Amino acid sequence: MALKSFVEVKLDSHFSIHNLPYGIFKHGGVDTTTPRPGVAIGDYVLDLSAIQSAGLFDGPLLCNSDCFHQSNLNKFLELGRPAWKEARATLQKLLSSDEPALQNNASLKQMALLPMDEVEMLLPIAIGDYTDFFSSKHHAKNCGLIFRGPENPVNPNWFHLPIAYHGRASSIVISGTDIIRPRGQGHPSGNSPPYFGPSRKLDFELEMAAVVGPGNELGKPIDVNEAADHIFGVVLMNDWSARDIQAWEYVPLGPFLGKSFGTTISPWIVTLDALEPFACDAPTQIPPPLPYLSEKISKNYDISLEVRIKPAGEENSFTVTSSNFNHLYWTLTQQLAHHTINGCNLRPGDLLGTGTISGPEAESYGCLLELTWNGTKELSVGKTSRKFLEDGDEVIISGICKGNGYNVGFGTCSGKILPSLP
Amino acid sequence: MALKSFVEVKLDSHFSIHNLPYGIFKHGGVDTTTPRPGVAIGDYVLDLSAIQSAGLFDGPLLCNSDCFHQSNLNKFLELGRPAWKEARATLQKLLSSDEPALQNNASLKQMALLPMDEVEMLLPIAIGDYTDFFSSKHHAKNCGLIFRGPENPVNPNWFHLPIAYHGRASSIVISGTDIIRPRGQGHPSGNSPPYFGPSRKLDFELEMAAVVGPGNELGKPIDVNEAADHIFGVVLMNDWSARDIQAWEYVPLGPFLGKSFGTTISPWIVTLDALEPFACDAPTQIPPPLPYLSEKISKNYDISLEVRIKPAGEENSFTVTSSNFNHLYWTLTQQLAHHTINGCNLRPGDLLGTGTISGPEAESYGCLLELTWNGTKELSVGKTSRKFLEDGDEVIISGICKGNGYNVGFGTCSGKILPSLP
Repeated sequence: MALKSFVEVKLDSHFSIHNLPYGIFKHGGVDTTTPRPGVAIGDYVLDLSAIQSAGLFDGPLLCNSDCFHQSNLNKFLELGRPAWKEARATLQKLLSSDEPALQNNASLKQMALLPMDEVEMLLPIAIGDYTDFFSSKHHAKNCGLIFRGPENPVNPNWFHLPIAYHGRASSIVISGTDIIRPRGQGHPSGNSPPYFGPSRKLDFELEMAAVVGPGNELGKPIDVNEAADHIFGVVLMNDWSARDIQAWEYVPLGPFLGKSFGTTISPWIVTLDALEPFACDAPTQIPPPLPYLSEKISKNYDISLEVRIKPAGEENSFTVTSSNFNHLYWTLTQQLAHHTINGCNLRPGDLLGTGTISGPEAESYGCLLELTWNGTKELSVGKTSRKFLEDGDEVIISGICKGNGYNVGFGTCSGKILPSLP
Repeated sequence: MALKSFVEVKLDSHFSIHNLPYGIFKHGGVDTTTPRPGVAIGDYVLDLSAIQSAGLFDGPLLCNSDCFHQSNLNKFLELGRPAWKEARATLQKLLSSDEPALQNNASLKQMALLPMDEVEMLLPIAIGDYTDFFSSKHHAKNCGLIFRGPENPVNPNWFHLPIAYHGRASSIVISGTDIIRPRGQGHPSGNSPPYFGPSRKLDFELEMAAVVGPGNELGKPIDVNEAADHIFGVVLMNDWSARDIQAWEYVPLGPFLGKSFGTTISPWIVTLDALEPFACDAPTQIPPPLPYLSEKISKNYDISLEVRIKPAGEENSFTVTSSNFNHLYWTLTQQLAHHTINGCNLRPGDLLGTGTISGPEAESYGCLLELTWNGTKELSVGKTSRKFLEDGDEVIISGICKGNGYNVGFGTCSGKILPSLP
């Protein structure tokens, strides 16, 4: 049954009281502009530093903490799930329609409850390391078909472990940041030399990413059945990719400059606790995973995902793909446990991307590489069409879980392509 | 001609007044144990926070800075080459035999000049991102011969761009830190399933790494001819590698868990200014590089490198390879310029590994994979021999430039292998 907040939450809002995602914002109004944590509720942001200052985080784990007087969420993430659950319970109570503490405190409410259109969202976390997995079977298969042909399109290792690579942390940007078309060396055809210039095959990748909580010490792996306690929540992610640069550089050490020019994440981290009602069974894995990847409960989440493109000069955006988080073959917890099995340490705020989330149908492919089959066909975008992204294109990813009378949504993750440097 | 310091510097010391490498140390003596910057001189460490407090950094760029009252060097790195040159000039003067300011100030000297055997060295920088290149042609060729055979052992892209991958920043540790043998999935033979357990092919990799200075904004590449101004200095690096894990996981996205269990760096960053007398011509590149990689002056450095192994229970260590930094095909400045050509931003303290530095002769190969040709032959180590590393083995990398009457050395970069978790 849907809980009710005293803050108005429209029926189509992503940010019901069941959600309460965390972000970092600046408010340019009468307030100072110090970046600080907030949760989204309807069309408002609740300033958690104000709530902490008012002493309303009065549970045992948070009453003496300064975790919300920080310019990122890392300190809160480090506290772990018991503190996250305490914060969620406190906030759900504080915002509920039958609780007077905030509702009837006019001055605190005015200070702490800020219209969302007055705030600027920033990166919610300081990201030490960013890892990108490759966990959709449909995506792996399509890439194999495109680049290697129909014989064994998916490498044998893929079914035994969640393949991943280290990504670039410095170039992760918040939704709304423009992306400059990268320059680089493109794959030559035949024996001709490589070309240099603006990427001719600029692509988006529909992904989500898990935000790591406490993490582990170097040398001490995290058990797969305890891995969920190390995942604070999930964001939308666009892992922009220059396919021509990537194709030329990636043998034998993997993607590098084809990816590192920019990765966009959504501002609101939706917690695993908020996603719990939308948990569903992960796909059966054949062959069965090795014991260290074998989970007592193997969970995915039913999160509807959509990518829209808004070409330059267009009023409207047009849906180019509709997918779902539940298409992932390897779960978030398997990804995390695998990441640490060699002793590698994860730190609070590390980001684990899922890889492109493609579904089985052509309409659910998660990037233009697949949707246009590496530019061999056109994808219709309103009155125009695309093989790859053009300058001025804005790509907007959204994600939502629909509950009974409420939503747990991610908002959007967007970015616009600017022309390359001359 | 050799400058002379009032601090005794033995003839074989790595740390002459011509060197003055930077590190971060803690001193457990009468002093507090706050981590702070120092430079090495002979058998001493000069505490730069004490020098800064005493007002002896009196040049225009540093007189009002608190860059040495920090627990890492990032703030100093951010200041750029003019500040680095000013600090070097100040310190060379302060330590010289004909300068009284420090020499004749007994109380400051006692406070600031600490015996090296009383300090503990820490990671000198907060590393945002770590990138590892693949810049020795001999190493690339040997890997190709071992894994793909004699036909085109080096991929065509290798001659056009400095191949690299993103490494794991969290697991970079300081010299002297033990390395736990990683567990993971090993490459199956034929159609058998992968095995799981402690790595059976644990290896070292002889590398060096450049420490990034000011860096660049996202979207604004650094010109190759200005790249040297973004490199503060160089450290020794051991990029420990589990060859069996790596071989199974690396297609198609590159090395991941086969590397991320630990990477060791030496504590002292030797500056480019100190290395300048040892600059030499980089090899001629054929085909000539694209214009963005074409340098007015293409420099390597003549740095003798050595790897020794000290088996458990042995008194002595045994040299297993002797190489030289000047075997690199792609220069540090080309690596850095290539890294940013797509707009990727570098930040102060980022680390750019060279990749394994192998020379042309079998005695100069930079890892056991090459030295034992993937375990097909034994390498003699004192009275015993090795195909790959065994538990208890300590691997010690050292590097030195020999000047006329003085050395500019790197000290050592060492780590001992501990047994895997059960």
